[in-house]
Amino acid sequence: MEVKARHISEVNRMDYEEFIEVFGNVIEHCSLCAAAVWRYRPFRDVKHLHEEIGRFIDDLPEAGREAILRSHPDLAGRLAGLGKLTSESTREQKAAGLDGLTQEERTQMATMNNQYREQFGFPFVICARENKKEAILQGLATRLKNSPQAELAKGIIEVKKICYLRLLDLVEHEGVESRL
Amino acid sequence: MEVKARHISEVNRMDYEEFIEVFGNVIEHCSLCAAAVWRYRPFRDVKHLHEEIGRFIDDLPEAGREAILRSHPDLAGRLAGLGKLTSESTREQKAAGLDGLTQEERTQMATMNNQYREQFGFPFVICARENKKEAILQGLATRLKNSPQAELAKGIIEVKKICYLRLLDLVEHEGVESRL
Repeated sequence: MEVKARHISEVNRMDYEEFIEVFGNVIEHCSLCAAAVWRYRPFRDVKHLHEEIGRFIDDLPEAGREAILRSHPDLAGRLAGLGKLTSESTREQKAAGLDGLTQEERTQMATMNNQYREQFGFPFVICARENKKEAILQGLATRLKNSPQAELAKGIIEVKKICYLRLLDLVEHEGVESRL
Repeated sequence: MEVKARHISEVNRMDYEEFIEVFGNVIEHCSLCAAAVWRYRPFRDVKHLHEEIGRFIDDLPEAGREAILRSHPDLAGRLAGLGKLTSESTREQKAAGLDGLTQEERTQMATMNNQYREQFGFPFVICARENKKEAILQGLATRLKNSPQAELAKGIIEVKKICYLRLLDLVEHEGVESRL
């Protein structure tokens, strides 16, 4: 998937429909976030745009932050098996090697994903582009021991990392850190 | 479009993925709302479900309520012309007679929609199923005179009406008012 990166001045000229179309999935399935931060134009750079999205998420009621996690697919889960992930998720899960799990790893992942969802009421979310499958499987096992509050906070941190990398694909970013 | 209405007990048994799939568009393009209120199961009835969605919207930061309006299409606008509305919006705009505007009415609507968006930074939203095209055109002309604050509040009231009617299509509702 080749994505054309835009200069920030071009971003700042977008009307809200175009803005939502371009940035609607930087938070998976939550175009409301893009729709909300459009009002904060002009953005100085991609980092500023990311900060406003982060601030919007932090200002949501707790149910809203949980909802953001619930809008994410399971890693190497049902939707991945059906080829029904968003193009962004497909690419990210592949980057982590999740398309090349052994049968045993796949079963292990599914079992822990289910346990995690059962326990917390939202799915396990991790920035796949910053982790390989071994780290993800280990992370799942470790994070199952956390409290719901800790996992909500941790999941949202991962959501913001995913968002940052998706934004870097969409906006020119010379001189900006490539990681958070 | 025929939709099967479910008993509330069936709704209360849904996992969050199914819940989001079924109720994801009761607030146009804002599946986050459904994802958020899932945590409030069990719902007594469709009205209770509607109340929780309304409360979630009211608890959003102002930017979030604006974002909900921005996620709505223009009435009789570009997307309608392209046949790219959601199935719900298509049906609702048709119910109001917006698919049968004269050329003059269409131009008038487009001009006022643009002026409204220019002025407020979000589109004119009205519950089309409770209004006919004449009332909608008149409403647009009148509401253009309001303050942004008043229009944000008014738009959200309309969003909740639209949501209620969409919920009634999805959930059995014997003994519940068919209007707000």
